[in-house]
Amino acid sequence: MKCSYCFRDAIYLQRYSGKHLCKKHFTSFFEKKVRKVIKKFRMIESGDVIAIALSGGKDSVTLSNLLLEQYGGRHDLEFFAITIDEGIANYREKTVEVASKVTKNLGIEHYIVSFIDNFGSSLDEIVKIGKKSPCSYCGVFRKYLLNRTARELGATKLATAHNLDDEAQTILMNFINADIDRLARIIPQREQEGLVMRIKPFREVYEKEVVIYGFVRGYSLIFDECPYSELPIRAPVRDFIYEFEKEHPGRKISVLRSFEKIWDCLKITNPQVKLNNCEICGEPTSQKICQACKLVLEMKEEISLKHCTSLTYSKV
Amino acid sequence: MKCSYCFRDAIYLQRYSGKHLCKKHFTSFFEKKVRKVIKKFRMIESGDVIAIALSGGKDSVTLSNLLLEQYGGRHDLEFFAITIDEGIANYREKTVEVASKVTKNLGIEHYIVSFIDNFGSSLDEIVKIGKKSPCSYCGVFRKYLLNRTARELGATKLATAHNLDDEAQTILMNFINADIDRLARIIPQREQEGLVMRIKPFREVYEKEVVIYGFVRGYSLIFDECPYSELPIRAPVRDFIYEFEKEHPGRKISVLRSFEKIWDCLKITNPQVKLNNCEICGEPTSQKICQACKLVLEMKEEISLKHCTSLTYSKV
Repeated sequence: MKCSYCFRDAIYLQRYSGKHLCKKHFTSFFEKKVRKVIKKFRMIESGDVIAIALSGGKDSVTLSNLLLEQYGGRHDLEFFAITIDEGIANYREKTVEVASKVTKNLGIEHYIVSFIDNFGSSLDEIVKIGKKSPCSYCGVFRKYLLNRTARELGATKLATAHNLDDEAQTILMNFINADIDRLARIIPQREQEGLVMRIKPFREVYEKEVVIYGFVRGYSLIFDECPYSELPIRAPVRDFIYEFEKEHPGRKISVLRSFEKIWDCLKITNPQVKLNNCEICGEPTSQKICQACKLVLEMKEEISLKHCTSLTYSKV
Repeated sequence: MKCSYCFRDAIYLQRYSGKHLCKKHFTSFFEKKVRKVIKKFRMIESGDVIAIALSGGKDSVTLSNLLLEQYGGRHDLEFFAITIDEGIANYREKTVEVASKVTKNLGIEHYIVSFIDNFGSSLDEIVKIGKKSPCSYCGVFRKYLLNRTARELGATKLATAHNLDDEAQTILMNFINADIDRLARIIPQREQEGLVMRIKPFREVYEKEVVIYGFVRGYSLIFDECPYSELPIRAPVRDFIYEFEKEHPGRKISVLRSFEKIWDCLKITNPQVKLNNCEICGEPTSQKICQACKLVLEMKEEISLKHCTSLTYSKV
């Protein structure tokens, strides 16, 4: 099949638009799309210091490369990368290594922050004892460390590689669970003290497109899945969206648009709360004690967990 | 298994509450629940003339019986039934017959309104020619005839038998399709000229519960499915909710709650538009020409369709 725009062979059929795209036109589409989203949400502004959440997986490796290639030449911007080492045997070691190669290659600073240094136990140890799902612990601790490290290192933005598939799943899951508060928090508002603004440059491109872009550009991508990744509630939502999108291309983006349409009213009915400082660790929280310290309190009798009162990280 | 409230054998496990219910306690639960919903949304008020949309299927037969048993004794209320005969061979004849028996038994007036009398063709003829899905034609024409008949016969409310499963599907489908306008129209607002207010007393009970209630009360229910019922978009949504509810009981109701939470803001951002009278038939519409007349215009070259300029119905 030929490209819809030129004489070259197509490498990708974009089902929701009906277009066949060759390497060159796919690359150009992808970069334009991401730049447009960045502009629309003012994700990157003059003077920004951008921390990239780099797990070493395919999405974050592609994001790091793209951001540096597209914006790395600007003198009014700075970039560095943070990798969280949760302590997941036979999985995280490899991606940490990939992450280090990527940052070395891009010439940016790289900080590795581990659960074991900061909370006293690895995720593998925590899930043996904990009664919640692995993702409940991992999500809270990882976000905590990402935000705290980014802020302490002077970042003004924290870039994550969430793609359209992730966003559509999260929106639909929160909608089905009637978790409107969490829904309202998906687009972070500016100027929340202690919270580095999260940006998601890939929020409007498909996971598949991120992978194809990474391949076409020759990044070395690895596809290992986290051994804990089968979330009991998220999995059926993911499968459903997958099936639905197959039959009706474009539905993932329409979930996002639906959300944006109700977002303006959610801002009115769920105004941003003023944050407190956690009484234990001082980090921002809407409660008295932050979620991470609560989890530590719940479990510290049974396992050698500690509150993260000061941050420990290694610079590679 | 015994009833959670008494010594009798349970006939129903209500998975989202974990309760086992015997005939008596199930009946009492169901009636209380429906009465509570009716009260919450002020669906039935003193002086109301209530038209019941009675297809003759299991849900609407149960609704008619329940409404008359629970509210039929009140002197400040009136009830009658409307059956739309779309003209679907080997399906509708039987349900129309059931509907007639039900109304005779309940002692209420019964009006039968057909597509062929009012639009000049049966649904079977329309779908042979039309390019849209059967449900696109049926939905528009059926709602048109229901509203117009109810209004011309002096109804103040139009009761339909939509249950929780229907509502959750509709909400999720409109959300996924980013059809926020349609989402905003799910709860009808009062006082729209020319539109009889629709009420859905079963909106918070499961389809399964409606059927069990109908059986327990000894109504004669039939379970024929409309031969056109496989909607291409609705089917995967229905299957998904079914699977999801099986794993996580209570999710259907949480979709409804989610919707109610955003409903207050939708009212702000999607205010009710003032309706016009259709230039052809005079019925209320947000456009210049109503949806039913538009469909007739689209097809009347190819098929003997006519605009419904005056209503024809038969009283049984």
